Amino acid sequence: MLHQTSVVVVVFCFLLVASSSYASVQDFCVADLSLPDTPSGFPCKDVKKVSVSDFVYSGLAAAGNTSNIIKAAVTPAFTAQFPGVNGLGISTARLDLAVGGVIPIHTHPGGSELLVVIQGTICAGFISSSANKVYFKTLNKGDVMVFPQGLLHFQINSGKAPALAIVSFSSPVPGLQITDFALFANDLPTEIVAATTFLDVAQIKKLKGVLGGSG
Amino acid sequence: MLHQTSVVVVVFCFLLVASSSYASVQDFCVADLSLPDTPSGFPCKDVKKVSVSDFVYSGLAAAGNTSNIIKAAVTPAFTAQFPGVNGLGISTARLDLAVGGVIPIHTHPGGSELLVVIQGTICAGFISSSANKVYFKTLNKGDVMVFPQGLLHFQINSGKAPALAIVSFSSPVPGLQITDFALFANDLPTEIVAATTFLDVAQIKKLKGVLGGSG
Amino acid sequence: MLHQTSVVVVVFCFLLVASSSYASVQDFCVADLSLPDTPSGFPCKDVKKVSVSDFVYSGLAAAGNTSNIIKAAVTPAFTAQFPGVNGLGISTARLDLAVGGVIPIHTHPGGSELLVVIQGTICAGFISSSANKVYFKTLNKGDVMVFPQGLLHFQINSGKAPALAIVSFSSPVPGLQITDFALFANDLPTEIVAATTFLDVAQIKKLKGVLGGSG
Amino acid sequence: MLHQTSVVVVVFCFLLVASSSYASVQDFCVADLSLPDTPSGFPCKDVKKVSVSDFVYSGLAAAGNTSNIIKAAVTPAFTAQFPGVNGLGISTARLDLAVGGVIPIHTHPGGSELLVVIQGTICAGFISSSANKVYFKTLNKGDVMVFPQGLLHFQINSGKAPALAIVSFSSPVPGLQITDFALFANDLPTEIVAATTFLDVAQIKKLKGVLGGSG
Amino acid sequence: MLHQTSVVVVVFCFLLVASSSYASVQDFCVADLSLPDTPSGFPCKDVKKVSVSDFVYSGLAAAGNTSNIIKAAVTPAFTAQFPGVNGLGISTARLDLAVGGVIPIHTHPGGSELLVVIQGTICAGFISSSANKVYFKTLNKGDVMVFPQGLLHFQINSGKAPALAIVSFSSPVPGLQITDFALFANDLPTEIVAATTFLDVAQIKKLKGVLGGSG
Amino acid sequence: MLHQTSVVVVVFCFLLVASSSYASVQDFCVADLSLPDTPSGFPCKDVKKVSVSDFVYSGLAAAGNTSNIIKAAVTPAFTAQFPGVNGLGISTARLDLAVGGVIPIHTHPGGSELLVVIQGTICAGFISSSANKVYFKTLNKGDVMVFPQGLLHFQINSGKAPALAIVSFSSPVPGLQITDFALFANDLPTEIVAATTFLDVAQIKKLKGVLGGSG
Repeated sequence: MLHQTSVVVVVFCFLLVASSSYASVQDFCVADLSLPDTPSGFPCKDVKKVSVSDFVYSGLAAAGNTSNIIKAAVTPAFTAQFPGVNGLGISTARLDLAVGGVIPIHTHPGGSELLVVIQGTICAGFISSSANKVYFKTLNKGDVMVFPQGLLHFQINSGKAPALAIVSFSSPVPGLQITDFALFANDLPTEIVAATTFLDVAQIKKLKGVLGGSG
Repeated sequence: MLHQTSVVVVVFCFLLVASSSYASVQDFCVADLSLPDTPSGFPCKDVKKVSVSDFVYSGLAAAGNTSNIIKAAVTPAFTAQFPGVNGLGISTARLDLAVGGVIPIHTHPGGSELLVVIQGTICAGFISSSANKVYFKTLNKGDVMVFPQGLLHFQINSGKAPALAIVSFSSPVPGLQITDFALFANDLPTEIVAATTFLDVAQIKKLKGVLGGSG
Repeated sequence: MLHQTSVVVVVFCFLLVASSSYASVQDFCVADLSLPDTPSGFPCKDVKKVSVSDFVYSGLAAAGNTSNIIKAAVTPAFTAQFPGVNGLGISTARLDLAVGGVIPIHTHPGGSELLVVIQGTICAGFISSSANKVYFKTLNKGDVMVFPQGLLHFQINSGKAPALAIVSFSSPVPGLQITDFALFANDLPTEIVAATTFLDVAQIKKLKGVLGGSG
Repeated sequence: MLHQTSVVVVVFCFLLVASSSYASVQDFCVADLSLPDTPSGFPCKDVKKVSVSDFVYSGLAAAGNTSNIIKAAVTPAFTAQFPGVNGLGISTARLDLAVGGVIPIHTHPGGSELLVVIQGTICAGFISSSANKVYFKTLNKGDVMVFPQGLLHFQINSGKAPALAIVSFSSPVPGLQITDFALFANDLPTEIVAATTFLDVAQIKKLKGVLGGSG
Repeated sequence: MLHQTSVVVVVFCFLLVASSSYASVQDFCVADLSLPDTPSGFPCKDVKKVSVSDFVYSGLAAAGNTSNIIKAAVTPAFTAQFPGVNGLGISTARLDLAVGGVIPIHTHPGGSELLVVIQGTICAGFISSSANKVYFKTLNKGDVMVFPQGLLHFQINSGKAPALAIVSFSSPVPGLQITDFALFANDLPTEIVAATTFLDVAQIKKLKGVLGGSG
Repeated sequence: MLHQTSVVVVVFCFLLVASSSYASVQDFCVADLSLPDTPSGFPCKDVKKVSVSDFVYSGLAAAGNTSNIIKAAVTPAFTAQFPGVNGLGISTARLDLAVGGVIPIHTHPGGSELLVVIQGTICAGFISSSANKVYFKTLNKGDVMVFPQGLLHFQINSGKAPALAIVSFSSPVPGLQITDFALFANDLPTEIVAATTFLDVAQIKKLKGVLGGSG
C-alpha cells in the first residue's frame, strides 16, 4: 500500500517540521555537576554528550562496609552519585545491616521513603507528629514499608543474619539528617544542646566524645 | 459617552456569559473540617457560606501560656485553627518565650519557616544535613531568620525579658515534630530508643518519666 | 534539676496549646478507597483508625506468576494495593522475568521509574522523544537504571536464569500503558489502528486475535 | 511462532495480576461537580460512568454575544463547563470581539494565558510589575501571545472586522478578575475605592452607576 | 485634593523603597536558549533585553507542509521556538491535516493536550491505561477535546476538506513521542522490537525501511 | 558499653560512605544573585561560602519612610533582599502605615499573603473574582488575615495611630502589582487605558500626571 521511495522523502519533511523543537524537549535532564545547583536541581548535561551510562548506576551492587559502630551502611544513589535522576523526582539507596546493625533515628527533609526488604528481618518504624504516635513493625523478606516525608524513623536488624534493603525516595535529593550526628557530631555548644533537648550535660559530653563533636 | 441605561443591560448580558464558570473558580478553598482531608488539603466550604471571618483569625492576639517546663508556647494558626489558609500554601504561629524560655529542637516535616522577632532577643539556629553544620545567631527585634524545610532547629530566649516572634510557614499544614517528645513522650520501647540514639538507658528512662512516656 | 511532678503538669499545658493543630497535621494521608478519588489522590482514612499495617505491604513477597505469554509478571504496590503511599509521591512494584521473559514496550504516564536488579540479568532500555534515540544496556545484579517519565521503555531477561527487579515510581499512581495492549486488546477499529500506526491490516488482526481485541 | 489459544489464556492471567491496580490508576479525573471542590480540583466522577463526551466540549462552537457595552464576549471552557479538564492543568476559552470590542484590563489569578488569533486584528498587552513596564503589540491572524500568570492584561479589536481568538490557560480554573468589575460592580464603599485607587469620587460613582455597584 | 508637585516627590520615595525587589520579581522568565537547561526550564534572559516580541510568536500563522506520508504537519510553539513560554506552564502548536491526513499514535510525556478544531472534521481519540479503554469521537469546527497527560492518542482528518486545529499543552516542553518513530526510525535492534511488541519481523523490517530505521 | 576509641574509627568510616552525597543534598539554596535567574529561582551560592548571615535579614528592623503620598511603606524581604529564602517557598515584608496611610489596591501575581497586625488598627480586604464579592474587615493588634493568590486587595490604617504589620508570602518572589501604578505610572497610551478601564480621559490624564506616567 505504501510506496517506500516517496515515503522516505515525505517523512524526512515531516521530521524537519518537528525538529526545531528538539532543543528543549525535556525528556530528561542529566545533572551537570560542574555547574551551580538550582532549586529544581542541577543544570542539564548537553544532550549530545548523554549516553545510556548516565542512566545506569552500578554503585549499589557491592555491600556497604558494616564494620562500624552501627554495624550498618547506607549507600546512596542520589543526584551526586547518579546524575541521571536529576529532575526526575526519585532516587534510591541500599541499606546493609549486619547482625545487630542499626540505622539510627533520622529524617529525610526532602522526601518520603519506601523500603523493600531483600534479605533478612528488619524492625522499622516512624513517629508521627500527631500525638507522637509510633508506628513500628518487624518486616520480613519482600515486605514493603513507607515512611512519610520528614518524620523521624529508624531501621534495626532484628534477625540473626545480615539484612539488606533497597530504599527509594520521592526526590533525587532527599537529604539525610541523623539526629545523633546533628546534635553531637559538630560544634553546637553543649549548653544549647542541653537547653533544647533536656538531656543531661554528662550524656551530651559522652556522645560528643563518641561522635567527634566539640563545644 | 456611555449611555447608562443600555450599559446596564449589556453588562448584565456579559456577566451571564461568564457566570457559568463561577462555580469552580477556585479563588480560595476555605476548609470544611467536617469532611475527610485529602493530600492537597480539606474539601472547600460552600462559597455561599463563606464570609470575611473565614479569612481572619484572632487566636494569635493573646500571648500563649509560658508557665510550663519550657517557659514557652507555640500558638499555631494552621488549617485546623484557621480554615481560610487551606490550599493557599501558607500559615503562621506566634512564639512566646518567657525569660529562660526555649522551643526545643524540632522539625516541620511539611514546610520551611520564617521567623520575625517582634520583641526581645532570641538565639535561633538550625543544623544542616550536609556535614551536620550548625547555623545559629542571636536575633534582635526586627530581625528575620529562615529555617529550611525539614531541618532540626531551635529558638531560645537569650535576653533578660520575654520574647515574642511571629513565624510563618510555606504550608498550611507544616507539622511540628519536637524531637524529645517523639522519643520520650510515647510508648516507643526504651531498648529501641537506646539502640537508635546511643543514649544511655538511664537518661532515656529519666526523660520518659519527665515527658510522660512509657515502655 | 527538674522536679518531675511539676514538669508533668506543665508539659501537659504545653501540649494543650499545640494539640488543636493536630487534627490537620498532614503527616500522611492513608487512602480511604471507599471515597471518590481527587486529582491529588484519595481522601484520607480517619487517623484514629490508622495503624502500622497501613504503612506495610506484604504483597510483593511472593513471585508473580510468569506462566504466561510474556513469561513475566508485574506485581504493583500502588495506592490501590497499598493505601499508605497515597499522597506521598512514591510507589513500587516487583518484576519477575522467567527465562525468556519480557516486559513489553510500555509507558508510565504519571511518573519516572527506577529499577534495581535483585537477581539475574536484564536488558533494559528507553527511547527518548528527541530524535527517537534509544538508550539500552544489559544490567546485572545490583545495577540501577532510571526511565524518565512518560517515555517508552522495556525490560528483557537476557540471562539464562530467572530475573527479579524491584522498581519504584515517582508517583503513587504512575499508571501503566502497554503499547500492544493499548492498540490490540480493545475495540479500537482496525482501520484506525492501521491509519495511525502504518501497520499492515493482517498484522493488526493477528495481534488483536492474540490479545483479545475486536473491531 | 505464537500459539494463539494458549496465549489468550496466559495473557488473561497477566491481566489479572495487574488489574487490582486499575481502581486508582489516575489517567484522568473527570470532575464530579456535585461533590465539594478541593484545593487540587473536584473529586473524580466514577470511571465506569465516564464516556468520551466527558472529554469533548462543544460550547465554544458558537460565537459569544457581543451586543454589549464591551462589544466582546468571553466564553470559557473551565472545569465548571468542561469537567474533563479537572486536574489536567489546562483549560480554554474563546474571545469574540466585534468591531470596537474590548476585553477590559483583567487578571487570571490562577494561571498564565496563551492567545492565538483565529480571525481579525487584536491589540493585546500586559503590564509587568517590574517598573510597571507595558508590553503590547498588534497581533494578526495566526499570531500567538502569552500573558504571564497574574499580570494585568487586555485585548482590543484594532481592526475593521470582527476578531476571534482562542485562548488557553495553564490551569483548569484560571479565574478571571476584571479590574473595573472588582472595583465598581459591587458594594465596596466609595470611600475605600477612592482611598485605595486615587480616583475621584465622581468618577467612582459614575462607574458604579454604569456597572451596577452600590455603596 | 492632591497637590501634584509634592505627590511626585513622595511617590518617587515610595518607589525607592520597593525597587530593590525588582531584580528578582519573577513576573516571567523568557528563556535564554544559549545557557544550559534546568529541570524547571531555561535560565532567564536579562529582563532589560526583553521586549514584547519575546512574548509574541508568528510561526503558527502559515500552514505546515502536508505533502508528506501522513498528509499532516505539527508546527510547535514550545520553549525552543517561543522562548516567552519558558516557566509559564503552557505552550501551543498548530495541526494541519490535508484530506486523508493523520497524526499517528503518539504521547506527550510532559503534559496534557487540549485541541480546538478551527476548520474541518477530525476523528480524535485516546486510550486509557485502565483496561485499555478507547475514547474517540468525530469533532467538528469549534469542538474541544482534552487528552490526559502521557496517554496514547491520535487525530485523523475524517472529512473531505483540509482540517486545522490549534492545540495547547499544560507544559512549555510537553515533548512528542510518535510510537512508530520510536520503534522504527532508529537503530533499536529488530529482535528487541520483535520481543517487546509481538510484531512480526517482516512487519518491523518493512516499517524500518519506510521510516529510515536500521538494525 | 561503648568503647570510645574504636567508635571514633568506625563512625569515621560510616561518614565516608555517606559523604559523597553531600555535594547535592539540597537542604537549602541561597541565591547567587550574580547568576541568571531560572523559573525555580536563582542558582545556589557555593555551600562552602554560606554562613548563618545568609539566613538572617535585618532590613525589616527599621520602619519604612511613610512621608509620601500614601503615608505608607512596604519594605520587602524577597529573594533580591534576602537570598536565603530562594527556593524555600516563603518570604516576608513589613508594612508601615502612618495615620491615614494606605496600601493601594494591588495584587501579588506569584503568591498568597498572610498579614499579622503588630500595632494599630488596619482595615483590610480583598475582592474575589466570583461575582466580584468583597471581603473586608477592621483588624486589631494580633489579628491575622489571609489574601488568596492573585486577588486584588488593600490595607488602610483605620486607627488614630501609626500601624505596623508583618506580612508573609507563599513564594520567595511574590511580586507586587499596584493597579494605579500599572495603569498610570508608565507610557501606556491614554486611549488604551480609557478603552480598557471605562475611566474618563480627564481622570486618566490627572493620575498620569500625579504618578509620573506619559502617553
